[in-house]
Amino acid sequence: MNTDPVELTAQLIRCPSVTPEEGGAIQLLHGLLQDAGFTCTRVDRNGIANLYARWGTEGPVLGFNGHTDVVPTGDPATWQHDPFGAAIVDGCMYGRGACDMKSGVAAFAAAAIDHVAGTPPGSVVLAITGDEEGDGVDGTAAILDWMQQTGERLDACIVGEPTCPTKMGEMIKIGRRGSMTVWITAQGRQGHSAYPQNARNPIHALIALLDTLIAFDLDDASDHFEPTSVQVTGFDTGNTANNVVPATSKAMLNIRFNDAHTSAGLLDWIDAAVADVTAQTGVTFTLETKVSGESFVTPPGPLSRMIQDAVAAETGVTPVLSTSGGTSDARFIRSHCPVVEVGLVGQSMHQADEHVRVDDIQTLKAIYSHILQDFAP
Amino acid sequence: MNTDPVELTAQLIRCPSVTPEEGGAIQLLHGLLQDAGFTCTRVDRNGIANLYARWGTEGPVLGFNGHTDVVPTGDPATWQHDPFGAAIVDGCMYGRGACDMKSGVAAFAAAAIDHVAGTPPGSVVLAITGDEEGDGVDGTAAILDWMQQTGERLDACIVGEPTCPTKMGEMIKIGRRGSMTVWITAQGRQGHSAYPQNARNPIHALIALLDTLIAFDLDDASDHFEPTSVQVTGFDTGNTANNVVPATSKAMLNIRFNDAHTSAGLLDWIDAAVADVTAQTGVTFTLETKVSGESFVTPPGPLSRMIQDAVAAETGVTPVLSTSGGTSDARFIRSHCPVVEVGLVGQSMHQADEHVRVDDIQTLKAIYSHILQDFAP
Repeated sequence: MNTDPVELTAQLIRCPSVTPEEGGAIQLLHGLLQDAGFTCTRVDRNGIANLYARWGTEGPVLGFNGHTDVVPTGDPATWQHDPFGAAIVDGCMYGRGACDMKSGVAAFAAAAIDHVAGTPPGSVVLAITGDEEGDGVDGTAAILDWMQQTGERLDACIVGEPTCPTKMGEMIKIGRRGSMTVWITAQGRQGHSAYPQNARNPIHALIALLDTLIAFDLDDASDHFEPTSVQVTGFDTGNTANNVVPATSKAMLNIRFNDAHTSAGLLDWIDAAVADVTAQTGVTFTLETKVSGESFVTPPGPLSRMIQDAVAAETGVTPVLSTSGGTSDARFIRSHCPVVEVGLVGQSMHQADEHVRVDDIQTLKAIYSHILQDFAP
Repeated sequence: MNTDPVELTAQLIRCPSVTPEEGGAIQLLHGLLQDAGFTCTRVDRNGIANLYARWGTEGPVLGFNGHTDVVPTGDPATWQHDPFGAAIVDGCMYGRGACDMKSGVAAFAAAAIDHVAGTPPGSVVLAITGDEEGDGVDGTAAILDWMQQTGERLDACIVGEPTCPTKMGEMIKIGRRGSMTVWITAQGRQGHSAYPQNARNPIHALIALLDTLIAFDLDDASDHFEPTSVQVTGFDTGNTANNVVPATSKAMLNIRFNDAHTSAGLLDWIDAAVADVTAQTGVTFTLETKVSGESFVTPPGPLSRMIQDAVAAETGVTPVLSTSGGTSDARFIRSHCPVVEVGLVGQSMHQADEHVRVDDIQTLKAIYSHILQDFAP
């Protein structure tokens, strides 16, 4: 048996599954896996389609997590290729989700279908969600809730997100930094810019606060993590009168933090800086916080070694263990079982003319087949 | 003869002369002054009504500059009184322009009409504009252009803007700080906030630049001036995606500068700071500048002493000589002749329920009468 992961990637790209639309992608996998002998359960929540597909009843259970939803195309005029066309040109397949991550889902599904055809020991699970690019609250989290209710357990899980910066095989991810966003509103006192002594400039106070936060040396890189990064991604006032000191101003701060920190600790740090600036300026601040995930790591061990060996065998490259990049649904899975991410080159993700090398899809299927074989030999 | 400045103020307030509308105010003064023996010339330009009214043909020529246009009312619901009603309640007259500066125009017009009825020596000029609250390009500047063409000269000029912070008589103005606005656009490189090394954050660069500019000690107060003040009055980015480092961000800077600086020198200072930040961050900046006026001063001398004496005689208070506050049309007149500003309490200017004490209008008329008398005794 030799299921073609390239054709399956193309079929998935042709499903217009922009979050929260299912677009036919989950249904396609449902039919395919059911035909291959998987027991398929739709675990939908709040209009989001999710699929739990299991082959086998015995341990050990290897899980695969991926998503079929994609980010919007942006202005279609910026694309050279149809975002839902899956055209192959010069060895690359183009389309939204080509690398993030319909190809990863297709590669694992193809590997798993071929694998279970040989009635191997153990069980194989695909947990596929339609809400990874959105808020993520009704996707993998919904599947994990359902697994807890029904007693379903994985012994280990791989996530098929693209993990390689530029070249197939060079990187796998054993954790992720935490991510939090803080919206800061500074409340000063409006006034005429010619009489600043009668006003309290909230922009000046925000600049002082943010300058302190940006400049602060939070940590160096740790064993498995890059240094914590603080980025001001928004600063808005909405005042057009050049001679008016406005009453309020707002900023947005996105923090990617390593295992030297928790979101609560960072919020304490910001609160202390806020108190200092308020004491100096009289400008007061209100904060709104959203924590996308705490930092986590599956320390290097049997799972990561097995995956490194599989990648090295199929690509000739031993991948580095990284925790770089944004968040992924591994942040939910990590409290259920060891989790490692291994996938394609992510360079064009979220961009116009997103694409994947066709050869890489075949290589990824081979890596996943290798892992399936080694996990329950 | 005893022309009532209070009734004239009320009549002017009832003219809805929000810039650039004439609203009947210039016409009202035109008729009144013509009837009193003034030679009146409309010096309109680009749809703005301006009036040049002269009594007498001999020197010395004392000029008065004022404006009848007013700023918009804002939301009428925030007013307790009709903005164009001129209601008198508890000794105060309410309406847009009550203190800025229909009362000042009315007080001088009333004083001048009474004064010339006695066929005094010298000449009296009223140069009244309808474009002070707007850009000012077709108001006093237009009158001065016309004066140059026709050979009209003033020996000294008083401007009737409100000059007292809280109490009648306490302050006159012998100059003004300069005012300039700089719009700064920072051009960085967009990217994902999880990979800041691949982006160039324009907000961080703007914060660094503005922090430097705000913190810099440009000067101390000088003989006639407060210290230079730098206020950031705008900072806007327009990015709502918390995980995206945006490509651009903009700030607006309003500078009120004393006679230690020129606008060109300050722009050089900003350019140097910009070059530093660009060298450190790779973020580039473009600047747009608008200079509302350079700083100027009529050094204390015969004109300011004469006005101080008149104010002291009528109020019992010797006014301080100040250069505080925003710009005024004195910035145009200063290159024509010595100019001093003397007027009412400006506390409620540009606000809802703008008002003036009725007693103060009478006092201001008395001050102006005193000056007219002393100028050409």
